[in-house]
Amino acid sequence: MSTDNLYFILVEPQMGENIGAVARAISNFGFYNLRIVKPRDGWPNLKANSTAAHGKFVIEKAQIFEDLKSAISDLNLVIATTAANRDMNKRVINLPEIKEAVTRARYTKIGVLFGRESTGLNNQELIIADWVVNIHTSIINPSLNIAQAACLIAYELSQVKPTQVLTINQSASKQELQLMLDHITNKLEEADYFKVSEKKAGMLQNIYNIFTRADLTSSEVRTLHGIIKALTGSKKWLL
Amino acid sequence: MSTDNLYFILVEPQMGENIGAVARAISNFGFYNLRIVKPRDGWPNLKANSTAAHGKFVIEKAQIFEDLKSAISDLNLVIATTAANRDMNKRVINLPEIKEAVTRARYTKIGVLFGRESTGLNNQELIIADWVVNIHTSIINPSLNIAQAACLIAYELSQVKPTQVLTINQSASKQELQLMLDHITNKLEEADYFKVSEKKAGMLQNIYNIFTRADLTSSEVRTLHGIIKALTGSKKWLL
Repeated sequence: MSTDNLYFILVEPQMGENIGAVARAISNFGFYNLRIVKPRDGWPNLKANSTAAHGKFVIEKAQIFEDLKSAISDLNLVIATTAANRDMNKRVINLPEIKEAVTRARYTKIGVLFGRESTGLNNQELIIADWVVNIHTSIINPSLNIAQAACLIAYELSQVKPTQVLTINQSASKQELQLMLDHITNKLEEADYFKVSEKKAGMLQNIYNIFTRADLTSSEVRTLHGIIKALTGSKKWLL
Repeated sequence: MSTDNLYFILVEPQMGENIGAVARAISNFGFYNLRIVKPRDGWPNLKANSTAAHGKFVIEKAQIFEDLKSAISDLNLVIATTAANRDMNKRVINLPEIKEAVTRARYTKIGVLFGRESTGLNNQELIIADWVVNIHTSIINPSLNIAQAACLIAYELSQVKPTQVLTINQSASKQELQLMLDHITNKLEEADYFKVSEKKAGMLQNIYNIFTRADLTSSEVRTLHGIIKALTGSKKWLL
């Protein structure tokens, strides 16, 4: 992992002051890639510039996205941050474990998601993540400011030694994975797999989780496309 | 160490917003003892209440002091936080090492000092500390917000397991140590030890450092008082 390849992603942040404080905190630990999905008060934001202090350059080069999907499409690993432990069928790690977790060199581009100040990340956004990192706070005051959360993540990740990137067997990008999932979904729809329409969303979530957890390489994603084609092109093989 | 026995001490903090953010951050990790030496804008401070959010109870029970000496007089171990590494003849530790450092059970009451937003702690304040903890920040933006620093310290210390306190051989309190140093200083003055007045401050610093680093117990401090008395009461023993 290198600082170049780590992306801090704020999902619908509400207060400019917090966006600026995140920029300051991540740059304190050598990080500078900030992506923002639909900032509530638009962009640019003067308050963000002001609280960023010497981290203003992070604000100036921040990338703005219309939705989370496009903000993560070129990444290989997405880690969501949560306070509460939600039962999500995801790999859940504690904050101190994040160092070891990202050390695996095959994740070349890593994104860390931070939710809204008011409500965090919703379930749909958590499903997109490969892992969930829990920051354990005290019952006397569990609610952590978003810039404090970003600071803690940046601090922990600044302790990870840069490792050599393996270009062989690299994890598929989120876009490659999504195209494959779209492929399956279309074929399943054609096959009338989702008979009960109100169950469709849940069924798709389960499928998404399976393939997200599998940590597929680009080559494996291509293999799956081939399998889907083969299976659907010649149905008699299945019977 | 237990959360009851850890004191976060802000030395002449300037902005109420930061005091509140410190209160919020330390309570996020289970700490609640806040001491403030001469807050610039007086006390109480409405902005501190506001940014403390659910950590407001920490602000409400914060203790205000007129000087650093009285703010640490009942503590056994004082740790100063600095960004830059200053040559101080002190034990200097990196932030991740603080967990192991405070695990020593004999330090029953521990204070962590945070300096002014503008200039940090001055040398005189650093001398008072037993240890200095460096929070390594990046050259791209070394300046860490005081509440972020407090958050990182609180996060690291929240990972320390509570240990049984040894009441035998407990470290002397800062007050006990100071009285002993005053005793030596007075006797040295009487003996015309500080011949060159402009060198006196430096000489006292060296003496202070020696006895601070020695990590004396209450019983050892009493022994030193006895030694000073014996030495000065019967000077012929020295000749």
